[in-house]
Amino acid sequence: MIVNISPRGSMDQLSQLEVDRLKQNASSELYQLFRSCALAVLASGSHTDDALQLFEQYRDFNINVLRRERGIKIELINPPEAAFVDGNIIAGIQEHLFAVLRDIVYLSDRYDNLKHINLTNSSHITNVVFDILRNAQAIPRREPNIVVCWGGHSINADEYQYTREVGYQLGLRNLDICTGCGPGAMEGPMKGAAIGHAKQRVRDARYIGLTEPSIIAAEPPNQIVNELIILPDIEKRLEAFVRLGHGIIIFPGGAGTAEELLYLLGILLNKENQPLPFPLILTGPKESEDYFRKIDEFIAATLGQEAQNKYQIIIDDPVHVARIMSHGMDDIKHYRKEIGDSYQYNWSLKIEPEFQLPFTPTHEVMSNLNLYFINNKAELAANLRRAFSGIVAGNVKMDTIRDVQKFGPFELKGDPKLMAIMDTLLQAFVAQQRMKLPGSTYLPCYKIVT
Amino acid sequence: MIVNISPRGSMDQLSQLEVDRLKQNASSELYQLFRSCALAVLASGSHTDDALQLFEQYRDFNINVLRRERGIKIELINPPEAAFVDGNIIAGIQEHLFAVLRDIVYLSDRYDNLKHINLTNSSHITNVVFDILRNAQAIPRREPNIVVCWGGHSINADEYQYTREVGYQLGLRNLDICTGCGPGAMEGPMKGAAIGHAKQRVRDARYIGLTEPSIIAAEPPNQIVNELIILPDIEKRLEAFVRLGHGIIIFPGGAGTAEELLYLLGILLNKENQPLPFPLILTGPKESEDYFRKIDEFIAATLGQEAQNKYQIIIDDPVHVARIMSHGMDDIKHYRKEIGDSYQYNWSLKIEPEFQLPFTPTHEVMSNLNLYFINNKAELAANLRRAFSGIVAGNVKMDTIRDVQKFGPFELKGDPKLMAIMDTLLQAFVAQQRMKLPGSTYLPCYKIVT
Amino acid sequence: MIVNISPRGSMDQLSQLEVDRLKQNASSELYQLFRSCALAVLASGSHTDDALQLFEQYRDFNINVLRRERGIKIELINPPEAAFVDGNIIAGIQEHLFAVLRDIVYLSDRYDNLKHINLTNSSHITNVVFDILRNAQAIPRREPNIVVCWGGHSINADEYQYTREVGYQLGLRNLDICTGCGPGAMEGPMKGAAIGHAKQRVRDARYIGLTEPSIIAAEPPNQIVNELIILPDIEKRLEAFVRLGHGIIIFPGGAGTAEELLYLLGILLNKENQPLPFPLILTGPKESEDYFRKIDEFIAATLGQEAQNKYQIIIDDPVHVARIMSHGMDDIKHYRKEIGDSYQYNWSLKIEPEFQLPFTPTHEVMSNLNLYFINNKAELAANLRRAFSGIVAGNVKMDTIRDVQKFGPFELKGDPKLMAIMDTLLQAFVAQQRMKLPGSTYLPCYKIVT
Amino acid sequence: MIVNISPRGSMDQLSQLEVDRLKQNASSELYQLFRSCALAVLASGSHTDDALQLFEQYRDFNINVLRRERGIKIELINPPEAAFVDGNIIAGIQEHLFAVLRDIVYLSDRYDNLKHINLTNSSHITNVVFDILRNAQAIPRREPNIVVCWGGHSINADEYQYTREVGYQLGLRNLDICTGCGPGAMEGPMKGAAIGHAKQRVRDARYIGLTEPSIIAAEPPNQIVNELIILPDIEKRLEAFVRLGHGIIIFPGGAGTAEELLYLLGILLNKENQPLPFPLILTGPKESEDYFRKIDEFIAATLGQEAQNKYQIIIDDPVHVARIMSHGMDDIKHYRKEIGDSYQYNWSLKIEPEFQLPFTPTHEVMSNLNLYFINNKAELAANLRRAFSGIVAGNVKMDTIRDVQKFGPFELKGDPKLMAIMDTLLQAFVAQQRMKLPGSTYLPCYKIVT
Repeated sequence: MIVNISPRGSMDQLSQLEVDRLKQNASSELYQLFRSCALAVLASGSHTDDALQLFEQYRDFNINVLRRERGIKIELINPPEAAFVDGNIIAGIQEHLFAVLRDIVYLSDRYDNLKHINLTNSSHITNVVFDILRNAQAIPRREPNIVVCWGGHSINADEYQYTREVGYQLGLRNLDICTGCGPGAMEGPMKGAAIGHAKQRVRDARYIGLTEPSIIAAEPPNQIVNELIILPDIEKRLEAFVRLGHGIIIFPGGAGTAEELLYLLGILLNKENQPLPFPLILTGPKESEDYFRKIDEFIAATLGQEAQNKYQIIIDDPVHVARIMSHGMDDIKHYRKEIGDSYQYNWSLKIEPEFQLPFTPTHEVMSNLNLYFINNKAELAANLRRAFSGIVAGNVKMDTIRDVQKFGPFELKGDPKLMAIMDTLLQAFVAQQRMKLPGSTYLPCYKIVT
Repeated sequence: MIVNISPRGSMDQLSQLEVDRLKQNASSELYQLFRSCALAVLASGSHTDDALQLFEQYRDFNINVLRRERGIKIELINPPEAAFVDGNIIAGIQEHLFAVLRDIVYLSDRYDNLKHINLTNSSHITNVVFDILRNAQAIPRREPNIVVCWGGHSINADEYQYTREVGYQLGLRNLDICTGCGPGAMEGPMKGAAIGHAKQRVRDARYIGLTEPSIIAAEPPNQIVNELIILPDIEKRLEAFVRLGHGIIIFPGGAGTAEELLYLLGILLNKENQPLPFPLILTGPKESEDYFRKIDEFIAATLGQEAQNKYQIIIDDPVHVARIMSHGMDDIKHYRKEIGDSYQYNWSLKIEPEFQLPFTPTHEVMSNLNLYFINNKAELAANLRRAFSGIVAGNVKMDTIRDVQKFGPFELKGDPKLMAIMDTLLQAFVAQQRMKLPGSTYLPCYKIVT
Repeated sequence: MIVNISPRGSMDQLSQLEVDRLKQNASSELYQLFRSCALAVLASGSHTDDALQLFEQYRDFNINVLRRERGIKIELINPPEAAFVDGNIIAGIQEHLFAVLRDIVYLSDRYDNLKHINLTNSSHITNVVFDILRNAQAIPRREPNIVVCWGGHSINADEYQYTREVGYQLGLRNLDICTGCGPGAMEGPMKGAAIGHAKQRVRDARYIGLTEPSIIAAEPPNQIVNELIILPDIEKRLEAFVRLGHGIIIFPGGAGTAEELLYLLGILLNKENQPLPFPLILTGPKESEDYFRKIDEFIAATLGQEAQNKYQIIIDDPVHVARIMSHGMDDIKHYRKEIGDSYQYNWSLKIEPEFQLPFTPTHEVMSNLNLYFINNKAELAANLRRAFSGIVAGNVKMDTIRDVQKFGPFELKGDPKLMAIMDTLLQAFVAQQRMKLPGSTYLPCYKIVT
Repeated sequence: MIVNISPRGSMDQLSQLEVDRLKQNASSELYQLFRSCALAVLASGSHTDDALQLFEQYRDFNINVLRRERGIKIELINPPEAAFVDGNIIAGIQEHLFAVLRDIVYLSDRYDNLKHINLTNSSHITNVVFDILRNAQAIPRREPNIVVCWGGHSINADEYQYTREVGYQLGLRNLDICTGCGPGAMEGPMKGAAIGHAKQRVRDARYIGLTEPSIIAAEPPNQIVNELIILPDIEKRLEAFVRLGHGIIIFPGGAGTAEELLYLLGILLNKENQPLPFPLILTGPKESEDYFRKIDEFIAATLGQEAQNKYQIIIDDPVHVARIMSHGMDDIKHYRKEIGDSYQYNWSLKIEPEFQLPFTPTHEVMSNLNLYFINNKAELAANLRRAFSGIVAGNVKMDTIRDVQKFGPFELKGDPKLMAIMDTLLQAFVAQQRMKLPGSTYLPCYKIVT
């Protein structure tokens, strides 16, 4: 089966050189990257988080970029059927395909090798993230209104319904949604917001999905996402979240959610960021109360009271959550106007290199993480963040999964008390089925060594 | 509490004369009509179908039209709080308010007394319906794609979820939705379609709500409706449905749904309408199979096989339903193009005066309905339609409810066998809680006299 | 030659009844009116002001309205070639055709017989004018910025170039243009403004043309006009000018321009209109200085100093003219906001019935005009206005031309001194070729009897 | 006088790094380039082609880029008054300012040093030109309709009026206009087309101006230009013309026009370009007949009959010119569709490096040009093109003017017969005042040495 897809969105003209570079070629890293991201997008309706199985299932899938008289077309060979309705590609998926093309062409054009932008200068990294977002037209002249929703892709029905309710209330208040793509807590708020936006006749609502090549297959964008952006690595994706988003809501989740919370707290603990308004809410339905109590205890025990002051926990009250976010936007507007910072990109948020430099979780690196109580809470947050980041990679990234299959689980070592706290939290995630979508038994990719 | 509301939608300028006519005035029928329709729209979030209670609760509500330098404003005094989010009116409700104003001004301007357009000429009635729809900008230059969804406002959770699924599949196929406003089967397909349309990036999707002054309070428009049109009476509303809609889906419902089905079958049985393509599907989830079997038996026993051939019953298959509608659009397009009829208003559908002339269900009229088997099936359908129409009025129209409170239930008389069939059907509606929203005990407004 | 024209603009759906009423029919007044206005619009490129010759030349022209699946089409039989470029109708003319259809259908629908709306109630007339403008979507929610340009259709090259310059300066200041259609001073400002608007990237500039059935053939709309509105008679057209326009510029012209100036001064002299800001400028190039001196003397001698105070004369300074208009808009905005009047329709301007009631210039009526000096200057202005109105009719309206051919020129009688002043002015108009387009000898349609 | 200008057009967000790079700095080449292009744009209403005088007059002009909460602003210090109307910047100039910023930022970002893109690979140059145009959003998905108009900036009133007429006829046929910016034949067609487009209600008409840093001051964009693009050098600008434009009209002009004609003929003479449809018309009013005869004779004497066959000369017939262009678009559409080339960028046009590599006219280079008759007509065209290019530089480019002031006129040497023909042509240009705007005596920057 071969279909030709016309462009949707802004990317509709490529130069001869650009098309040549994307030519189908088993040995071209760029082509392979393009093919796998495209496949992830096309299979987004399949409800799986098993990338390996996905790539196996569609191993005869191929993709080509063709130049035509009106611009380019994308040729799909044996694409997943779920991408089509009665033979026509779903418009949302069509847009995502061309977003993939846009970002891959741009990154390869501009930074030669998008997988290894060896930038060590903090300011340069921040400018690169801006550059990628701007190229995706994600920096419009609008007032602050982006709420980032973090949370697990594998959540239960009550939690899912709750994320919809919160999204609905956000949508009623003209707030836009940004998530990391994927199902669960990344999808529910968008569906809810879509209804809220419809009632408020918001025609230009933004449903932003930020992803990166190694996780897009495990957490493909749902089709409501109308701005899909592929950042080159997990750290630039995290930086995009916190500079683009004006407020953040954290729903229940697993290791990835813990990574995100630690990343953000580590940054907010930076003295230079004290004056910045940054609304941060942890919320869930009645049944999640215990879950958040455990998270809160973990933060108390590791980063302390100061970190706890950065967030509030709200249980079972979507209207309250939405109101806090809505009022927070006014604070942000006034603050940024006063200091002359952009409404759409939080340049003044200070991010230390330890939160920017790409972290590659090998067995060696993981076993050498400095998991001890230290006075510098931001540094501790950075170290803890890396531990959870490695676990996420071991759960969903293909290369890391293969490493774990080969060398066994990562070994995490450190202060016994800290190890015990982490163990408790991780076991709770496993028990609550937050590590992977239900249907398979979760084999931990890590081992706490005490 | 007093709020001023700015216009949304096309109606933003009124003449001095028009504003004067709408001046707050206890004895002005026009003002009272305006006030009660406006209140119904404002209270649309309240989830009640009890108009009497609604008007009682908001008896200190008032409304004024003000002329201002940029056009008009609507002043609301003590409006229902549910219409507002954090003090701002919901945009959908704001649009509905001005749609009410638009239709009431237009009808009173043009037809003097909108409650008694004493038109007896069939062609004139058809032109009036067109005129009202055109004034509401509901006759755009678009291809056939409007699916009318009929069904009960009081349906169970499974049925509701099913209507959403069907709406979602319709939305994925770029089909627009038209319903009679209100909750249940009139809301579910719109919510589903909103998600489908979002995924397909359909930005100009139409969610059309057709209502009339006496039922708007019991079945207020949900706020997804982005084209609200108030027809002057129930028969013109029914005519608007069948001339505007290109295909019709009937979900489970009560007396109102039966009225609609009988109305449509009566028209489709007309020999002149034989060649017209008119897709008609009765559908519901697995649990509704029995419900539709009963309806089907009722039609078989009264209107016969020919009437049964006009529809198909599809159980638990939203994709199939949506595909049939989608393909039906092509047939309609070809047919209308060939005979030169409008894509947007089905002029060639023949409707006999017996289906057009307003039916006012008094106790006398109801007890004299000709409820006997007759050869002319279209006429029988018209008579049966009137019986159900009277029951609907007794359930939800304020004036009729008062009559029933005063004089007791309507008495329906006729052929014993026919009476028995009707009785069975109506009792099933009652038992399944389809007559009124759950929460109160249903007191029948009719009595089968045998 | 037969061509089918698709709709452009808002009028794209007609009911069966409406189409029937417009059926080609030699004896239908409505059809004849439609045909002649349509012909005037189609021949707008022909540069003639001789309606009789036009209708003679295209006596085999016919027009039909057809209903089609997507709405209506207009069928043209033997239309003027000037309306087409390489076989395609010019889009501006296409819009004008459908504007003609829109206004004729609306007036006939609503007021039965548009040529004789026998309204004597001043307020009703004002509401009717509003109603027609609103139906033509000419009452948008915008800030005050409409400059009406009056002046002759037959002006010399320097004057024409000057009107362009003024238009250009108005366009640079985002001001919209409204004229009476036709060439000369009604076209120049629009062409100039189009360039000014282009430089200012004004994409929604309005070029409003107000006309009426009896003069449209002599002064057809140029194709830059993007809002063409046909008022039913000359007095409603004048009322539309002064209620829609926010300021008025008068360029050199003939009898029609004198009529317009007298009409406006008569209204502005009304005590009730004293507080209203209404910028009024008489302007022309250096060579027109003498012309305006004569007009000014005529006003001084008839209506006196108070009337002179209502306008200023500016010679050869387009920038100054445009600045006064631009600043005037601010005054109007503040004034209307304060008194609560509409920005887009000057409801508070008081117009006495003597300026509203249709004036039909028969020989008897013209010879009985009260052309004597009277204390009531507004009434004198009304009488003088009628005298000039009759002369315009004798110059360009077909029926009046035929009367004059049959019964000889109108006889104007009155105070000898007044008659002498008028004679001087009119002779100057004739000498300067302002009565008719050059190319023919002007035969006066009037005679001053002393 | 200091004013802050908000963005217009797409360029409204810059990164910190980009803003830093543009900081006001006397020794920054990039800043100086930005300042001088910005000044040229701001002074576009001044009607001068003397860049030196312009920069002298506004030597206290400065410009800064500021980051603000909604994006960037441009701060202007002592800008030319002609850029403002009643204190507000003209929107067209505002757009041009940000176009300058866009192109300078892009080129410096991407190609480090935009004045010396040392590309020698023909394909790379073609891709760079595409890249710049695409970044300026000048490669939309539209059908072929761009007519490039070349001709002198200094033409007489009849010629100017003629260019307007041709533009008007092109506009009536929905054709877009592309010129090299500046007055005269680069402005007239746009003004005419603006009226034609207005009559045809073309709302998205394109008025493309292609310029480059060294000539923008002498030929600033008129404000109708709504797509201003700054190419890095004269050869890339020429390549942009012939790849972007679908047909070319040449009006009377001087050395620059001759350069352009020779460039194009040199390319069209390439065997590989034989099958490409490329409408090329030389046209002017009746009085220009002799001018074009001389050009034709020059081509006949140098490039021969084959080159003459590439164009047609049409005298005094704007409708005919516009019709040929209009029909040509169909040929181009079919041809490109067949061979799969882009409608918007003529990839298949073969351009040899001799027409692509930047030519810098020093005295040495100019005196060594190979100006002899040779068999390879394309090469001869390239050489002749360089001779005229040097003369243009000596007329308008500041650096070259200074060289000529210092070292005396360029010396052109070669075949005596060829020199005689060139001399005749150049003397005619001088006599007809085509070298510079009237008002000064033209001092030739060249000397024919025989």
